[in-house]
Amino acid sequence: MNFASDNAYGAAPEVLEALAQASIGAAPSYGDDAITARLRNRLCQVFERDVEVFPVVTGTAANALALATLVPPQGAVLCHAEAHIAVDECGAPEFFTHGAKVVPIEGGDGKIAPRAIEVALAHFHKGFVHHAQPAAISITQASEAGTCYRPAAIAAIAELARQHALKLHMDGARFANAVAFLVCTPAELTWRAGVDALSFGGTKNGALCAEAVIFFNRGDANDFAYRRKKSGHLLSKMRFVSAQILRQLDGDLWLHSARRANTLAGSLAHGLTAIAGVEIVHPVEANAVFARLPDEVAARLRAAGAQFYDWAPPANGRTLVRLVTSFATPEQDVMRFLEIART
Amino acid sequence: MNFASDNAYGAAPEVLEALAQASIGAAPSYGDDAITARLRNRLCQVFERDVEVFPVVTGTAANALALATLVPPQGAVLCHAEAHIAVDECGAPEFFTHGAKVVPIEGGDGKIAPRAIEVALAHFHKGFVHHAQPAAISITQASEAGTCYRPAAIAAIAELARQHALKLHMDGARFANAVAFLVCTPAELTWRAGVDALSFGGTKNGALCAEAVIFFNRGDANDFAYRRKKSGHLLSKMRFVSAQILRQLDGDLWLHSARRANTLAGSLAHGLTAIAGVEIVHPVEANAVFARLPDEVAARLRAAGAQFYDWAPPANGRTLVRLVTSFATPEQDVMRFLEIART
Amino acid sequence: MNFASDNAYGAAPEVLEALAQASIGAAPSYGDDAITARLRNRLCQVFERDVEVFPVVTGTAANALALATLVPPQGAVLCHAEAHIAVDECGAPEFFTHGAKVVPIEGGDGKIAPRAIEVALAHFHKGFVHHAQPAAISITQASEAGTCYRPAAIAAIAELARQHALKLHMDGARFANAVAFLVCTPAELTWRAGVDALSFGGTKNGALCAEAVIFFNRGDANDFAYRRKKSGHLLSKMRFVSAQILRQLDGDLWLHSARRANTLAGSLAHGLTAIAGVEIVHPVEANAVFARLPDEVAARLRAAGAQFYDWAPPANGRTLVRLVTSFATPEQDVMRFLEIART
Amino acid sequence: MNFASDNAYGAAPEVLEALAQASIGAAPSYGDDAITARLRNRLCQVFERDVEVFPVVTGTAANALALATLVPPQGAVLCHAEAHIAVDECGAPEFFTHGAKVVPIEGGDGKIAPRAIEVALAHFHKGFVHHAQPAAISITQASEAGTCYRPAAIAAIAELARQHALKLHMDGARFANAVAFLVCTPAELTWRAGVDALSFGGTKNGALCAEAVIFFNRGDANDFAYRRKKSGHLLSKMRFVSAQILRQLDGDLWLHSARRANTLAGSLAHGLTAIAGVEIVHPVEANAVFARLPDEVAARLRAAGAQFYDWAPPANGRTLVRLVTSFATPEQDVMRFLEIART
Repeated sequence: MNFASDNAYGAAPEVLEALAQASIGAAPSYGDDAITARLRNRLCQVFERDVEVFPVVTGTAANALALATLVPPQGAVLCHAEAHIAVDECGAPEFFTHGAKVVPIEGGDGKIAPRAIEVALAHFHKGFVHHAQPAAISITQASEAGTCYRPAAIAAIAELARQHALKLHMDGARFANAVAFLVCTPAELTWRAGVDALSFGGTKNGALCAEAVIFFNRGDANDFAYRRKKSGHLLSKMRFVSAQILRQLDGDLWLHSARRANTLAGSLAHGLTAIAGVEIVHPVEANAVFARLPDEVAARLRAAGAQFYDWAPPANGRTLVRLVTSFATPEQDVMRFLEIART
Repeated sequence: MNFASDNAYGAAPEVLEALAQASIGAAPSYGDDAITARLRNRLCQVFERDVEVFPVVTGTAANALALATLVPPQGAVLCHAEAHIAVDECGAPEFFTHGAKVVPIEGGDGKIAPRAIEVALAHFHKGFVHHAQPAAISITQASEAGTCYRPAAIAAIAELARQHALKLHMDGARFANAVAFLVCTPAELTWRAGVDALSFGGTKNGALCAEAVIFFNRGDANDFAYRRKKSGHLLSKMRFVSAQILRQLDGDLWLHSARRANTLAGSLAHGLTAIAGVEIVHPVEANAVFARLPDEVAARLRAAGAQFYDWAPPANGRTLVRLVTSFATPEQDVMRFLEIART
Repeated sequence: MNFASDNAYGAAPEVLEALAQASIGAAPSYGDDAITARLRNRLCQVFERDVEVFPVVTGTAANALALATLVPPQGAVLCHAEAHIAVDECGAPEFFTHGAKVVPIEGGDGKIAPRAIEVALAHFHKGFVHHAQPAAISITQASEAGTCYRPAAIAAIAELARQHALKLHMDGARFANAVAFLVCTPAELTWRAGVDALSFGGTKNGALCAEAVIFFNRGDANDFAYRRKKSGHLLSKMRFVSAQILRQLDGDLWLHSARRANTLAGSLAHGLTAIAGVEIVHPVEANAVFARLPDEVAARLRAAGAQFYDWAPPANGRTLVRLVTSFATPEQDVMRFLEIART
Repeated sequence: MNFASDNAYGAAPEVLEALAQASIGAAPSYGDDAITARLRNRLCQVFERDVEVFPVVTGTAANALALATLVPPQGAVLCHAEAHIAVDECGAPEFFTHGAKVVPIEGGDGKIAPRAIEVALAHFHKGFVHHAQPAAISITQASEAGTCYRPAAIAAIAELARQHALKLHMDGARFANAVAFLVCTPAELTWRAGVDALSFGGTKNGALCAEAVIFFNRGDANDFAYRRKKSGHLLSKMRFVSAQILRQLDGDLWLHSARRANTLAGSLAHGLTAIAGVEIVHPVEANAVFARLPDEVAARLRAAGAQFYDWAPPANGRTLVRLVTSFATPEQDVMRFLEIART
């Protein structure tokens, strides 16, 4: 019963099989291979637009490289206070940007609102060399709270970004989960709504190690290729990274996998709601459930082998926990978890 | 007939199979898994010593992270003028060390000699704040010229390093090829000879993407774990990286693979020597052959589909080319290459 | 009537005279001169302890170099949300530390309290590589709000720092104003209360360009000398920087200058208090007055040539402004300012 | 008898007097003052062109900031092997550029020739992400060997730079000495010959601490202002830096000072030539003499109190020394030095 993270599970069998296929014969290295070219074409179709694609192996690399390309050293990136780039990357964006600032903004349900962004922006005077200069907004889709931005919400942020000449980056480590939840296309959730760059996640959704940085406007990619190399993120056998994402896109495996994870999270939430003393604290839209559990329930679950993170220290007899489901979480684990919780 | 690089070929079937095995079930992420623990133990056996092990996915990351851990921003790293860290990493060591200097030293057959290192060191005054401060020597085993340092040669450099309080790093992207060629143990080629840190290569030898930074003295690892995370090189599903190297070590697959590559290089060199106008310019000890080919021979080979790099512009009717063999190079490609060269 | 900043005024005549004296003859460069040696000795006396001294020319350099010496790239510095290092240095600490985080903490009257620091610290898990690792606390004395930390308040923060293995840095751009205001010695405000490093300010108090980074424990200075050189802050004619601070210390000129500035701020505040609709928002302890002025008063003052900063946009008919006095502010400017305000 | 460096002497009395004048009254800080504006206008006249001017306090800061503005992190700067940026700045250019490479090129008399630059450029493949990408050439005028590039020599390098899309930077720490020696205008030695950016030195020529980075094409200045602030090099009382250079330009004090230093160097060289066993190794064009002295002569001079640097270890009974004269070197010191040398 592992609900600790969606990266606790291995890789989808289809992805493993694709690696074996990709391994046959010799091929140009460092991304000049046919599979990487095919991935680019496929992503152009998926996003209904000519896009620039750079595969990498971690979400942290994807985010930090994308931001370093969009934000100068004197710049600042505005994001949610619990964003991965703000909290969970050990200052990777600061390192890759050579010292730009990551500015945390509070917001309900893991999302930031235009008004809060405007308040934050007011602290930075444009052209005043003493102040860091806001250069980008980064939003997380699905968010760290398991919620999703609707296209209109993204467009409102993008409009604000445009007014202030900021780039809009989307951390899509769980982009598939958002697409699966919302009734809209990848394009509608990104460039059509005003997103400039996307960290397109594959790892949490069944790849071994595969993400892609996607720029929707060619000029924005700038010197990304050099940054990727200089930071050690250009793999010699790049075809193995590209093959993973390509396979995920084939037959919409990425959406099936994400839908499965979302559905299990929904079942978890549904079951928990019925239990006295349990409170679901954020709308369950993607593959995570944030629930306040009575401490004895949490203890009983842990004693039975369930793994999950405490999201805050216990308070008033209850603890806020995070439960994450994945493409490979066994359905019976969800059943058993609920059964034990109910007892 | 791909002799462009040993990274042109895919992965060994055994390694792919190991990935499938590693993928089963849930496991702790970010390297806290059982496979990564097993890899550490296995490397302690292989190197006959308690070592610190950090898997990463590229040689550039391995080298740059190792050097950044050993060398402060005001430091300098001395290495061969053709070393990968000096020439082929787009300044990754400078980026990861926050501006340390990489000092190129000339040396025959891709190797540096203690005397040349001493001459270079004389340019830097110890404790003089205006000068970069030498902090490490980096040697490449097998070298970029396809040659190998003997243990005594390494020990002589290590002794010099010790006298000047420098750390000794070994770029072992082709360490397996060196071990396979020399009649000695991994320990004899590293810490017993005075090496402090090793970039242990797996990718060129049949992995998809797997290298390991090994520190032979615990204290030297310092804040490596943070640097790896901050640079985006800590994979969430780290077990997939560890599993590759672990499988390569099992049953000495790594040495069999390397020996095969070395043998093919030997065959190539042997066959070429017999051809009029061909000159082999470095001893062929690992899996690369540097040969001066008559221009018409080179042209004929290329016309027949052979791939290889020109190592220098044509001069006097001949061109210096590099031919690299790998664990997966078809033997018949070697035969055919020689046949065409001979015609 | 310039109350915009204490750096709006030039240099004290005594300091200029000291430069002329320092200029005579030849001397060793880069800080190996007799004046710099004398400054070090003098500061050891002033602080009643053997200290390490590094003169630099800006407060930003002093702060950023001190912090980069105390905080590793994966580290974090906790400070007041309005601290100069957080807001007014364009990310210099992030640049010099190679990407450490500056964590803003709210606090009344420009000061941070131990409790708020503890709350902030709770967000960072020690040894968890995904999180930045708190490594230092930085407090500003006198604060950006013109208030002063008492020795007991500093000691309480220092105790917390000790418990969490953090270094305690003090931004003393206006340290003289704090010493002049509080009835205590430089030692009592720094190392006796637990401060590890001090940016000792001279410029705002009558120097042309002179600050000194002081480490109270020799080991903490670490590789500061190299960082200063590598960032272009080692002046060849360093004696001219040292001479400024040395002269300020002679005959307690630094304290007389600061006292004068403080007194003028007190007069300003006293006069303003008597005016209807004016509110002084922070205790006036150093050389700054934060006052909410009726908009028509502010407009009248500006029309008469008074210069000062709006600290926040106008609200409800009043504007929060900052008025700073200096060693050289003419007393009659204060009188005239009050007169116009009163009209 | 101090011939160690031209920064061993203090400041010109006129410059000190200018500081006193600049100190009067209140003024906008951070370079928004009238003196800094006047300096810019004055430099536009001196260089007969609209130029961008950024005063800083050290040559290292001037060079590193200029290069960081012209060269991206993946870039490379080509310069003479003995250039200050390559040897004497502890890797400041690497730090400010975030890891660009400084590529040393050998050349006689401290100067680099187009042919040698071309040979070096051939090692870097344009657009090949594994290689650093040459982005600038930096030449030193007057050179570290005390020699001067003629306008035609500069133009030849500039032409090469243009062909390879490189920027041309001039380290002019001793630019005044070059202008004083050559019969040509500042414009002829810079933008008219193809120089894009100049580190215009004041300190060695009689300022306390004053250099200016000058961009000859407005677009090249880019985000220099932010880099200067972020690195702690924006002085609050900037007028004191600007006033120094402005005074040096007034009445051509800068050229008179430089001419005096040059003349003394000429006298030294002339006198030394007549001494048996002494060899002058570079043409004496600026204010430095490189001479091979018999060891007993060097010892006798040192015993008499003469200060100068050994430029290389003793060899064959002689030592290569560097003798530098300055605007303030007493003429009698030159006389006495020669007298003792002759004895």
